[in-house]
Amino acid sequence: MRQSEPRSHCPINLSLEIFGDTWTLLVLRDMMFGGKRHFRELLQSDEHISSNILAERLARLVDGGVLTKADDPTHKQKAIYSLTEKGIALLPIVVQIGAWGSHWIPDAKKLDARARKVVREIQESGPRGWAKRMDELRAEHLR
Amino acid sequence: MRQSEPRSHCPINLSLEIFGDTWTLLVLRDMMFGGKRHFRELLQSDEHISSNILAERLARLVDGGVLTKADDPTHKQKAIYSLTEKGIALLPIVVQIGAWGSHWIPDAKKLDARARKVVREIQESGPRGWAKRMDELRAEHLR
Repeated sequence: MRQSEPRSHCPINLSLEIFGDTWTLLVLRDMMFGGKRHFRELLQSDEHISSNILAERLARLVDGGVLTKADDPTHKQKAIYSLTEKGIALLPIVVQIGAWGSHWIPDAKKLDARARKVVREIQESGPRGWAKRMDELRAEHLR
Repeated sequence: MRQSEPRSHCPINLSLEIFGDTWTLLVLRDMMFGGKRHFRELLQSDEHISSNILAERLARLVDGGVLTKADDPTHKQKAIYSLTEKGIALLPIVVQIGAWGSHWIPDAKKLDARARKVVREIQESGPRGWAKRMDELRAEHLR
């Protein structure tokens, strides 16, 4: 997928060349905390991602080694996406971006009660809770 | 700056509406670890940010409460940008994005020796080292 040389070899830049946009980390959020594995499920986000953006971002994540794509043996003609270890390693970053938003952005208070409960549970579980979720993802996603 | 309602009230989404792109966290990187405070300094990045993108991102960060902009008393006609407490709170996220890139992206090995030393020092200092740098930024940026 990458057409050219990276803009620099700074590791922050290299990371952002994979997931530095407004959509990619939302796709990972839905895989990490929403149990989503299929294209159609990932399309059903509150943010209304379009199918062409979703397809482009998934391809980029597969290309970047964050996800793998395989035929789903339980659904004919459906692809299933799995997080790799490299992808699971992004979980603490996703959680901390959410914690920053919860704390600093007033609009986060408008989140509905059900979703707020999920966010609070993830954040309050701390690094030990994140490690537990990462282990669950390893069990579900890595073969 | 924000033209419309956020796409959702999910705190991860709200955060990405502020800094979810390939440039913004590089600007913050240069302020947090490169001591840059002026437009012309921030323009001198290895990634060659363009002046119109830089201007747009700085305005968005000021609008989002991550930076403040003021006249620099020591430089006539120059604006100086300062991190707010909300901006300084992003430091652990910036560092961890760098740590993920260092560990998982082979191109990060091509970083030149001088820059690699800086990255290693920041990462190896751990949360205590990040807190120290955050205190230094508070002393330099908050009035």
